[in-house]
Amino acid sequence: MAALSAFISLSLDGCYADANGEMSWAHTQDPEQAEFTSSNAKGGGRLVFGRVTYEMMKPFWTSPQAAQMTPDVAAGMNAMPKTVFSRSLKTSDWRNTRVATDDFVSELEAIRAGDLDASVLGSGSIVAQAATAGLLDELQVMLVPVTLGGGKRLFDGIPHAISWRREDVRQFSSGNVFLRYHPA
Amino acid sequence: MAALSAFISLSLDGCYADANGEMSWAHTQDPEQAEFTSSNAKGGGRLVFGRVTYEMMKPFWTSPQAAQMTPDVAAGMNAMPKTVFSRSLKTSDWRNTRVATDDFVSELEAIRAGDLDASVLGSGSIVAQAATAGLLDELQVMLVPVTLGGGKRLFDGIPHAISWRREDVRQFSSGNVFLRYHPA
Repeated sequence: MAALSAFISLSLDGCYADANGEMSWAHTQDPEQAEFTSSNAKGGGRLVFGRVTYEMMKPFWTSPQAAQMTPDVAAGMNAMPKTVFSRSLKTSDWRNTRVATDDFVSELEAIRAGDLDASVLGSGSIVAQAATAGLLDELQVMLVPVTLGGGKRLFDGIPHAISWRREDVRQFSSGNVFLRYHPA
Repeated sequence: MAALSAFISLSLDGCYADANGEMSWAHTQDPEQAEFTSSNAKGGGRLVFGRVTYEMMKPFWTSPQAAQMTPDVAAGMNAMPKTVFSRSLKTSDWRNTRVATDDFVSELEAIRAGDLDASVLGSGSIVAQAATAGLLDELQVMLVPVTLGGGKRLFDGIPHAISWRREDVRQFSSGNVFLRYHPA
């Protein structure tokens, strides 16, 4: 069976986006973290995201600028199998992209029954829904040393508490702390 | 000048109490953490809390049970200088307790101008107000590996984001991660 993981940057007060939907507070120039994140993401597996994240990613990664700036990553992003959850999209012209309009849970179950590990990128509501349904095998949090006071909160409104088992902690010189959890 | 610090347990999604105001999810039987927390708290400084926390603490620490169960801690809690912020209390008969009805900021400024370090216990709204006013010198977070989905959120509604500098990280076998921050 394949594993479904999620990587998300969180503020110290549990937000993945600020009150304006921005994530600029999570950006860092730390080369050590950049290397870690990119090697962490190098799995060659499937990417899973929601329509909002899809619409931020597709225009960039299919642009000539991306191919110039980071040719390897751009080639990887375009080649990797991708699943986008959407009610409004019907099809996608981004290479290797499946638009999932089916039931969320059966779609994720099918991904996990396959042989290709999958990662949710951004897409806080997909992370929360997958974890609530018991379908998230790993939660990776980059804890950013900022308190926002409000914004989009990961796991907001989930119907029951979820306990996690800490697997790994790593500190970066930026002040960020990377935390890896499995469901307890 | 004295330093004002705060120690608070937070869920992975940034709550210090669940939707019922409970904090039982933060309790642990880890003896290593118990020793760390009690030696961390042993400063002999001033304790600062709000009325709600005060009304949970006073009946217990002044009881014969507390004197029997943990005589040293009980003696310490009763002897230490304490400040409780309240609009409804006028006086307190708990030993060495000052009821602060004055302006919040001038009260904390007076504490920091003194020579006795002070710690905020629990009391999330006091932590948030002190940090927002630039009067919190250290934030200590015990990050508990649980996501609650809702509850009392630390720093909820603060008027501006606050950046922190990470000072220290410590892992406990329970899965808890202790994080220490100073304002950036």
